Amino acid sequence: MSLLVAITQWEPEPWIERFRRLMPERAVIALGEPFNPAEIRYAASWKHPPGSLAALPNLQVLFSLGAGVDHLMGDPQLPAVPVVRVVDDDLTNRMSEYVVLHCLMHLRRQRAYDAQQRQKLWLDDRFQPGAHHVRVGIMGLGVLGQDAARKLKVMGFDVAGWSRSPRSVEGMATFAGAEGLDRFLARTDILVCLLPLTQDTRHILNRSVFARLARDGRLGGPVVINAGRGGLQVEADILAALDDGTLKAATLDVFKTEPLPPQSPLWTHPALTITPHNAAMSDPESIAVQIAEQIRNVERGEPLRNVVDPRTGY
Amino acid sequence: MSLLVAITQWEPEPWIERFRRLMPERAVIALGEPFNPAEIRYAASWKHPPGSLAALPNLQVLFSLGAGVDHLMGDPQLPAVPVVRVVDDDLTNRMSEYVVLHCLMHLRRQRAYDAQQRQKLWLDDRFQPGAHHVRVGIMGLGVLGQDAARKLKVMGFDVAGWSRSPRSVEGMATFAGAEGLDRFLARTDILVCLLPLTQDTRHILNRSVFARLARDGRLGGPVVINAGRGGLQVEADILAALDDGTLKAATLDVFKTEPLPPQSPLWTHPALTITPHNAAMSDPESIAVQIAEQIRNVERGEPLRNVVDPRTGY
Repeated sequence: MSLLVAITQWEPEPWIERFRRLMPERAVIALGEPFNPAEIRYAASWKHPPGSLAALPNLQVLFSLGAGVDHLMGDPQLPAVPVVRVVDDDLTNRMSEYVVLHCLMHLRRQRAYDAQQRQKLWLDDRFQPGAHHVRVGIMGLGVLGQDAARKLKVMGFDVAGWSRSPRSVEGMATFAGAEGLDRFLARTDILVCLLPLTQDTRHILNRSVFARLARDGRLGGPVVINAGRGGLQVEADILAALDDGTLKAATLDVFKTEPLPPQSPLWTHPALTITPHNAAMSDPESIAVQIAEQIRNVERGEPLRNVVDPRTGY
Repeated sequence: MSLLVAITQWEPEPWIERFRRLMPERAVIALGEPFNPAEIRYAASWKHPPGSLAALPNLQVLFSLGAGVDHLMGDPQLPAVPVVRVVDDDLTNRMSEYVVLHCLMHLRRQRAYDAQQRQKLWLDDRFQPGAHHVRVGIMGLGVLGQDAARKLKVMGFDVAGWSRSPRSVEGMATFAGAEGLDRFLARTDILVCLLPLTQDTRHILNRSVFARLARDGRLGGPVVINAGRGGLQVEADILAALDDGTLKAATLDVFKTEPLPPQSPLWTHPALTITPHNAAMSDPESIAVQIAEQIRNVERGEPLRNVVDPRTGY
């Protein structure tokens, strides 16, 4: 009944320490330590080395430690067990903090004031649009997208959403699929991408999508915020769209290659705001508590929650 | 039954144009145009020249065109008529946009990421506090303060308020007067000042107040946001407190002298964010509609709304 914790790119210790404290009755093994493969019933992964979970004959459940499960899908030897994704109030709140912050920065022209401050310039700029003049479009209407939408509406923004398959969300216009995308983009001034990365969504933030965003908005051009995954965006298209005015500005938390390499031209583009993939951080405490609870429930014969659908990949 | 419009420091034309359109039955006179003083029944002011409203024998009401009426109080010949202040949903929403934006910028360490971006640095900084870890204290619990508090709570912040005289606000701890100030400051990580400028509040943002803010918070030191009036703050105290670590950062929309002079050291302090007094702009359309409506109501014998209490000055 042991738990194997397989983490790369993050510090594993905070996770191991918490799992041991929460499940003192159970062996918690960090990948790299010696263990008997037959004892492993559960695995918890953040970007585990491909193949490292392949020879676990009694594995029952694989837990993802971060939002999204795309980091698991590159493993051709991924075990054929249920994969559980993180749905966590704390992570959801942090994502909404990020989305509301960056929508407000674009609405309130913070980068223009930053530039004026550097120049010691006091420019009267009284007639800014209010949030109700600005249309935010959220791609991805899962738990994260719906929470961000609700909070953006409280701030006064005019919010709509798009998802791959139709979803109705109270108090919000929603669009779906390829056939709904045009109308969604045409009414969007700030495009916020919170989609999962799947075969269907890879490179969805591309030149053709940017060109279909609203041109009649109050921000002086459309804006893109990607807090999903780097694989959703075509980075060369973002740079070209910023340079030719198809986009006015963009905020990116995620990148094709992370950490973003120092030679990337994204770092220095004046219309780009870059954050180091921490829009919504996994809090080990909160997420470890949930995983320990799911393990207890499974052993009592209760169903797992938040299991990934293998057909859609999220 | 004419309206005299007395504006300095803003463009008067948008106001004049709107008043004329909204009240075609009435003469709308811009200060500087010839007029018969006995005809003036109403005046609308933004920083009118002192004395310019003194000789209007039939003046009944003086309307302020912006939030706050402190700009009127410097006129020793201010006519002894009811003064009406602006209470406007649009202005309220804009102030809350500003307050939530700048609280989130401090919470989410946006200035640290700005600096990292300039250096092309990708630093893992996963364990940031969430909004629920951070205590915002709002000084001033009028319409603006209450709306900002509500929206900050939706974002997850731990919000309390302080006002000169006791106020109870549902779902929020409130403190009042000199005797409540210590406890309020001791539980505040981000101090947001939305007070009116009166004899009682002048220079309230001073070294003694900064020194009493929480030292045990999750932001690495207390933060001040002033979106009220420049006269509320002692600018030398803000700079000294930033330099010696009493404050971690500050965001200022208002200043003792506006426009902020180029030689002011505030412009270049790395822990200061400066905006050009536009946190909450008066929208001529929205405010002119309200004033026209109040004039109609008065002439029907109905009471004025939002009249300033001459004892408190707001």
